[in-house]
Amino acid sequence: MIEITLPDGSVKEFPKNSTPMDVAKSISEGLARNVISASFNGTTVETATPLTTDGNLTLFTWNDAAGKKAFWHSSAHVLAQALEELYPGVKLTIGPAIDNGFYYDVDPGDQSISEKDFPAIEKKMLDIARGKYDYRMRSVTKAEALDYYKKQHNEYKVELIENLEDGTITFCDHSTFSDLCRGGHIPNTGIIKAVKLLNTAGAYWRGNENNKQLTRIYGISFPKQKELTEYLHLLEEAKKRDHRKLGKELELFTFSPKVGQGLPLWLPKGAALRERLENFLKKAQKKAGYEQVVSPHIGQKELYVTSGHYAKYGEDSFQPIHTPHEGEEFLLKPMNCPHHCEIYNARPWSYKELPKRYAEFGTVYRYEQSGELHGLTRVRGFTQDDAHIFCTPDQLDAEFKNVIDLVLYVFGSLGFENFTAQVSLRDPENPGKYIGSNENWEKAEQAIINAAKEKGLNYVIETGEAAFYGPKLDFMVKDALGRSWQLGTIQVDYNLPERFDLSYKGSDNELHRPVMIHRAPFGSIERFVAILLEHTAGNFPLWLMPDQAIILSISEKYEKYAEKVLNLLENYEIRALIDNRNETIGKKIREAEMNKIPYMLIVGENEEKEGTISVRKHGEGDLGAITVDAFAKIVEEEINRTLKQF
Amino acid sequence: MIEITLPDGSVKEFPKNSTPMDVAKSISEGLARNVISASFNGTTVETATPLTTDGNLTLFTWNDAAGKKAFWHSSAHVLAQALEELYPGVKLTIGPAIDNGFYYDVDPGDQSISEKDFPAIEKKMLDIARGKYDYRMRSVTKAEALDYYKKQHNEYKVELIENLEDGTITFCDHSTFSDLCRGGHIPNTGIIKAVKLLNTAGAYWRGNENNKQLTRIYGISFPKQKELTEYLHLLEEAKKRDHRKLGKELELFTFSPKVGQGLPLWLPKGAALRERLENFLKKAQKKAGYEQVVSPHIGQKELYVTSGHYAKYGEDSFQPIHTPHEGEEFLLKPMNCPHHCEIYNARPWSYKELPKRYAEFGTVYRYEQSGELHGLTRVRGFTQDDAHIFCTPDQLDAEFKNVIDLVLYVFGSLGFENFTAQVSLRDPENPGKYIGSNENWEKAEQAIINAAKEKGLNYVIETGEAAFYGPKLDFMVKDALGRSWQLGTIQVDYNLPERFDLSYKGSDNELHRPVMIHRAPFGSIERFVAILLEHTAGNFPLWLMPDQAIILSISEKYEKYAEKVLNLLENYEIRALIDNRNETIGKKIREAEMNKIPYMLIVGENEEKEGTISVRKHGEGDLGAITVDAFAKIVEEEINRTLKQF
Repeated sequence: MIEITLPDGSVKEFPKNSTPMDVAKSISEGLARNVISASFNGTTVETATPLTTDGNLTLFTWNDAAGKKAFWHSSAHVLAQALEELYPGVKLTIGPAIDNGFYYDVDPGDQSISEKDFPAIEKKMLDIARGKYDYRMRSVTKAEALDYYKKQHNEYKVELIENLEDGTITFCDHSTFSDLCRGGHIPNTGIIKAVKLLNTAGAYWRGNENNKQLTRIYGISFPKQKELTEYLHLLEEAKKRDHRKLGKELELFTFSPKVGQGLPLWLPKGAALRERLENFLKKAQKKAGYEQVVSPHIGQKELYVTSGHYAKYGEDSFQPIHTPHEGEEFLLKPMNCPHHCEIYNARPWSYKELPKRYAEFGTVYRYEQSGELHGLTRVRGFTQDDAHIFCTPDQLDAEFKNVIDLVLYVFGSLGFENFTAQVSLRDPENPGKYIGSNENWEKAEQAIINAAKEKGLNYVIETGEAAFYGPKLDFMVKDALGRSWQLGTIQVDYNLPERFDLSYKGSDNELHRPVMIHRAPFGSIERFVAILLEHTAGNFPLWLMPDQAIILSISEKYEKYAEKVLNLLENYEIRALIDNRNETIGKKIREAEMNKIPYMLIVGENEEKEGTISVRKHGEGDLGAITVDAFAKIVEEEINRTLKQF
Repeated sequence: MIEITLPDGSVKEFPKNSTPMDVAKSISEGLARNVISASFNGTTVETATPLTTDGNLTLFTWNDAAGKKAFWHSSAHVLAQALEELYPGVKLTIGPAIDNGFYYDVDPGDQSISEKDFPAIEKKMLDIARGKYDYRMRSVTKAEALDYYKKQHNEYKVELIENLEDGTITFCDHSTFSDLCRGGHIPNTGIIKAVKLLNTAGAYWRGNENNKQLTRIYGISFPKQKELTEYLHLLEEAKKRDHRKLGKELELFTFSPKVGQGLPLWLPKGAALRERLENFLKKAQKKAGYEQVVSPHIGQKELYVTSGHYAKYGEDSFQPIHTPHEGEEFLLKPMNCPHHCEIYNARPWSYKELPKRYAEFGTVYRYEQSGELHGLTRVRGFTQDDAHIFCTPDQLDAEFKNVIDLVLYVFGSLGFENFTAQVSLRDPENPGKYIGSNENWEKAEQAIINAAKEKGLNYVIETGEAAFYGPKLDFMVKDALGRSWQLGTIQVDYNLPERFDLSYKGSDNELHRPVMIHRAPFGSIERFVAILLEHTAGNFPLWLMPDQAIILSISEKYEKYAEKVLNLLENYEIRALIDNRNETIGKKIREAEMNKIPYMLIVGENEEKEGTISVRKHGEGDLGAITVDAFAKIVEEEINRTLKQF
């Protein structure tokens, strides 16, 4: 008999060689039907793996990330089998599960596999799935494994196997198909009910551009057809909301190959949007006692040697900038903290003057490989809504709470209702990994947990996830399509104060080391705008919209009246423009709807006579004819609903 | 007889070998007394040089720049003579006139010359001056010249002479002193009535750090003692107003050796000042139809190859930034125009949509040698209040006038009353030097002249001073100490539209090339703040002051009332702070005066009882006890006096 401990702490005895599936069955038939994957003592196992020792067992269903991973990994095997059957001689390389689905990289030889072939491949995959073939792991010797693939002339698998230790090599078999595989499958192919291949892409063998280019086939699969339908709808919706598409349509930003990839150019409407976001945060920060500073976009290499960034990231960053004379070396600044430390160091401080809270919308530059770049979410230059708080250890608690208030205010004003927080603490088993005294760490960790509790955050604690320089709190928001984004971070830092020899004079007249808090509610303006675009599909909160209203004249005759209305709106600080083109009102409305302008104000004969505007709300329709004053009140109320006072 | 043409166009006959001094005497005795230098057919001559041909003669007095130059150059000879007499064996090298005075670089051998020796040297110089020795030019052969200095073991002069052509070498003699010299002296040493040596500095022979370091002695001299006294007073005043000193005292900015020289870090008060300047201009620019854009601080090298900047400045600039992979090359952006061209190029334009006016407070980086750096006036990174107007040639006239209006508004709101403008046009004798059609140049030059006239500018036309890409208008302002600064520039550009292939569709449905206007009323924020600090001695216009008022409590008892006053002031958007320290009111007032805070608001028992504040104005004194409302009105009126509506 062996003792199996379940995640709820309960312990049960089972005969030796019982499988995870046996354990599931002993709990309930329903669980057994749904279990698709398992881990034993922290290691992935098959649901059919005989358990031979005592240990901790976790069972996964489709609802667990680990369950999905096993599902998609198993689906990649089915894809591989389908390809082998449809394209004899195709050479398999690797085929992992990814965040959403799976892919397989194959060398099709002189055949070609393209998206038009997807229906046939999908059909073949579903045929295989319906066979309900069990996935069975099998140990092989290195010689057997090499022999198997050499016969197939598959130099890729041979290369993979040559790098493995004999005695550790396993294959997975199902139906007539075998693949080199470490394990982690669902029980059988029958669980796969819906399959969709998404696209192909070129991929170099082992990611090295000097190697042969393979064909990568991306796909996704589900245990129910309905889930696939929903996913495809989401994908469709995500495409419509793609910030790169909306950014272009709404004329917010552009890229220029001459300026360089990953370096956004902000067009007037986008620049104004950025400025509104910055002013919104500046105003709240001013109330919260922050002071704006301005620092250059470069710094001497020495500065980053002091901060430790050079040793850690120097080689993978934009390389040093040399001067034509005098042999100086500068770096593009990858973060603002070293500069702010030097600003703090510009004069001595007393404990009575702390905390100092230096804020800067600081544009930083970080090298990313061109393949990693993506619209505004992965760029090479971006503006952090950065601030550094220099405080005494005793002030940490209150400062942390204040920062959380600010972050919640930002999320609330921008329509992110759905978020969780992650508290990252030290690994208690590895204390040598961290800088700073034990006492200060305990103080800081307790401060974060207290603050998260007191502010009623929905948070999880992740032990061992702290940075070496301090514990932190990260915010994850869910967007309107249910996708998760990491936004907003608050980090405690004991390292930079040490490296920059920061100090303040305490009430005991001795010099002490301040603590630093790094924080950025948006994270980066670029990424935040991208997420906000995808979250709102371009229908930003009214206070943030580039154009809040458009005046549509029934005909050019009403130009004068349209201008009068515009002037009135300007007095109310409502951002509006006029469409006085010689077009039908229907066309003007359609275009304004497409441009996502929140309010359309129609002016014609009646309106001019009555001194009114006929108001139409984007996506909602007619609100009737009212005065500009009454309209201004509607706008004010709508803004006050989202943009509360901090 | 020869015919001499004077600057007023009048022609007079003189016997051959008449001197410029003879001509001066023929005009008036007064002129002859004041003439100290002359030029004949564009070349500097002595006042005693015999004129042998017909030609144009200009006579200079102390009031002319050329007169001062001769005066100071001649004074350098006197300094050299004094040094030779006081420090036997001292080796002379070069000693030119500079903008304010002169210097001489000497190798004192094993002697040392320091500022404590200045009184003795000055005394010796005045002794020589009083000898009224004539300056006499003398031609020598190269062999004679070399022989003269070899005997003195002066390897510096020998090196200079070795690089000269035989037959072109002249010496200047006065008293017992001779020096290798090209000429351009005052008639005799007696005109020098006042001398002041200012400081010494190290200077490498020929500016090359591999050569021997010489002792440079700076001095200045005047034809009247009174002028020296005034100059020294001005120097004293300039020292007090030195923006580096004031910037530190007022906590506006700092430099850090770790971040790098020439890279200012803006402290909270300075950053807020910058922001106010930027918002002030943004507001006016919005009214004038500008649109803000945001562009990155780097660009691919290719971008600057296209713009032509790389070919022209590449070698002397910060060197390219390499990427760790993929072999890309970027440059720190030295100007914003290439980026704005790419923004313009992001979509096609119709003539109906022009002008486009893109504005950006764009921070640019330009390499300067460390010896050239000076506070905020010569830096390596600075923020231009940049804008580029893309318009049709027909719109140039109106656009130019609009820009002048904006520049005049800026100067007026910041207290620069005293300025002139310079219109730089083509050299008509060298048309091949310029890019763009003759027709467009004429249009642009006429547009600038018209605009300058119509706006009533006090302007001079400088033919041949245009850039190769277009004519321009520069503004020179005089500060409170009478010093001239170049501020504000408006430039027409036909070059970049060509290089970036910019176009718009005209009313003829054909593509046309737009014209660009570069303009920056401040020039750079950094330099502008420096000049404004020196101009106002830190007493900025009230709307711009970091702290507009300080509440001084008579004792800590009135803290509550002080805070109530502060809240009231905040409602009026008056920037104020409280000094509630346990110090005498006298000390608090003295410190507030030193910190140049415009209004001191004293609160004590009476004020609290009456609900008033006792107002004291910086540099003026007591204004009596009034309500906060009444004070707010005073502030509003003072702001409206300077900061007018644009």
